[in-house]
Amino acid sequence: MRAAIFRNGEIIVDRMPAPKPGAGQVLVKTLACGICGSDLHARQHAHRMVEMAKKIGRTPMDLSRDVVFGHEFCCEIVDYGPGTERKLKPGTRVCSLPALLTPAGIQGIGYSNDNIGGYAEQMLLSEPLLLEVPNGLAPEHAALTEPLAVGVHAVAKANIRGGEVPLVIGCGPVGLAVIAALKIRGLHPIVAADYSPARRALAAKLGADIVVDPRVSQPYTTWAEHAQMSAAEKAARPPLQAMLPALKPAVIFECVGVPGLLQQVFEGAPRDAKVVVVGVCMETDRSEPMLGIMKELNVQYVLGYTPDEFAYSLRLIAEGQVDAAAMVTAEVGIDGVAKAFADLANPEAHTKIIVQPWR
Amino acid sequence: MRAAIFRNGEIIVDRMPAPKPGAGQVLVKTLACGICGSDLHARQHAHRMVEMAKKIGRTPMDLSRDVVFGHEFCCEIVDYGPGTERKLKPGTRVCSLPALLTPAGIQGIGYSNDNIGGYAEQMLLSEPLLLEVPNGLAPEHAALTEPLAVGVHAVAKANIRGGEVPLVIGCGPVGLAVIAALKIRGLHPIVAADYSPARRALAAKLGADIVVDPRVSQPYTTWAEHAQMSAAEKAARPPLQAMLPALKPAVIFECVGVPGLLQQVFEGAPRDAKVVVVGVCMETDRSEPMLGIMKELNVQYVLGYTPDEFAYSLRLIAEGQVDAAAMVTAEVGIDGVAKAFADLANPEAHTKIIVQPWR
Repeated sequence: MRAAIFRNGEIIVDRMPAPKPGAGQVLVKTLACGICGSDLHARQHAHRMVEMAKKIGRTPMDLSRDVVFGHEFCCEIVDYGPGTERKLKPGTRVCSLPALLTPAGIQGIGYSNDNIGGYAEQMLLSEPLLLEVPNGLAPEHAALTEPLAVGVHAVAKANIRGGEVPLVIGCGPVGLAVIAALKIRGLHPIVAADYSPARRALAAKLGADIVVDPRVSQPYTTWAEHAQMSAAEKAARPPLQAMLPALKPAVIFECVGVPGLLQQVFEGAPRDAKVVVVGVCMETDRSEPMLGIMKELNVQYVLGYTPDEFAYSLRLIAEGQVDAAAMVTAEVGIDGVAKAFADLANPEAHTKIIVQPWR
Repeated sequence: MRAAIFRNGEIIVDRMPAPKPGAGQVLVKTLACGICGSDLHARQHAHRMVEMAKKIGRTPMDLSRDVVFGHEFCCEIVDYGPGTERKLKPGTRVCSLPALLTPAGIQGIGYSNDNIGGYAEQMLLSEPLLLEVPNGLAPEHAALTEPLAVGVHAVAKANIRGGEVPLVIGCGPVGLAVIAALKIRGLHPIVAADYSPARRALAAKLGADIVVDPRVSQPYTTWAEHAQMSAAEKAARPPLQAMLPALKPAVIFECVGVPGLLQQVFEGAPRDAKVVVVGVCMETDRSEPMLGIMKELNVQYVLGYTPDEFAYSLRLIAEGQVDAAAMVTAEVGIDGVAKAFADLANPEAHTKIIVQPWR
């Protein structure tokens, strides 16, 4: 079968053997797979990713061997391995967490030498993790389940109590997913910032109430304008707090993931802000802990999602509660993956590119 | 009056005019004032402290003018200013938050050019903030209210739900206060780590159940040995979590405050740990956000305490629930402050030195 393979630091197209399903596993045809910012990061910082995996005791990729990226997929069942219940017929469209249950334990799909990701014609999934795609939902939209789940999880980890005013820094796919999840959660106004006009337009489409161009106004200033306490909230404060600025609680989502960004958040954030770090910064970063201390910031680092959040995200898309389709800016075949990685560098041109390996 | 003054980067002894109480203020004689690690930091990194204060919009110290440090004090009422209720008689022993209510708003005591701290014979307090020291409690022990309140606040901000196993990194006065507050909170076992045998002995005295010498064993390994889930807790986990190590939730208190320490915590912490940063690191710090992300860590930066926590801390000491006296390793007069700053560099020799300006 054909695949876009990460080999020697580049994405190349080559043929490889089709995988064979083991016990409890399912062979599927990959219908659609989104390209994730983490894939771009991984191509650029593969050695860092290996180093980090080692540090936390996970099996790292062997960079001398092939890897097929792709962890945002929608597939069609082709065949079952031994010891499976086969409740879903071949031809059924399915999504799954990017994880494979193997005799050696649970393993990731997408950054593994052994488990083929979604940029290939076929891959293996685990029967217990399959979620049937509700009738009629296009595979290109079902494939957005995974990135939406990242936003749903980030908002869940923010431990929202109600009354917070959210600020989303960066409106790439991660920021957009956070905005969509905040809208579902009913939190308003949602303030979002991005340098790209195209991304700001998407942010508004997905639920941002106020979009900020950081070239024109400071996101934290705009946030503060929309986070003023009501007269009743002001009156309810204890005496010593009454001397602080009368702002509603802040929850700031860092959805960029480059060095220096967290320090910017530390500088801009109001006192007692909750900062959710969703953007994945692969490099060593510098910041001033004193700012965090003097403002008593809370920083929640997040990654991934729970199985429940994943299934919930698929339902949100299938029921039309989240206009995930708005994020898709191009569809390419296996031959187009390398160019798509390059194209995604321009936020005006692209947000989410979907790979259709059958094309 | 005489005072130990921070002038041109050094602590010197000189005379200065006694302060006069304004509206709502009280003139007090300083009976005892603890030397805080932040005072040592401030002497060494005064310019950084000024820079940080500016960054968060507070009035910084003017380093070309005198400052009298000292914010952990117990005093005796001498005289009242205009517009005061005078419910407590002159001679009454009092504690107070290190804050002064002035016509210009609330101001800090201890790092201010205008408000004299506790290393002087007299100072000003605000009547509404006075707490009467319960009968018979020695001023040297009442002065420990402030550092204990730091620990009480840190534990409160950790948002303990029950069932967590705490790890305290660093057993200086801040770490010891955290240990005392954890003991009051009923959390066990309390694991604490410090290189100094004297500090480990104090940690055990104040409530640590397990003390670790990082030269002998890795604190996070020792923590994990004491944080194993019970069979019932293991059985109650959802299927995918059952593949992770069966550890109780971790809450790690960083009570050292030097560059590189937070990165060490990021490396050692188990998945989903809550990290409470109580140690004040004045310098820019480096860390790897990827570790935080892959482990989904939560980092709560903390500073200070609420008025309620402060009053509660005084009660804990007065009622003998916290053996605060154990922390005091020396008492000095104004002439001894400069040497005490130097002596505190040796954790074997000293933990908390109390200044008695009347000596």
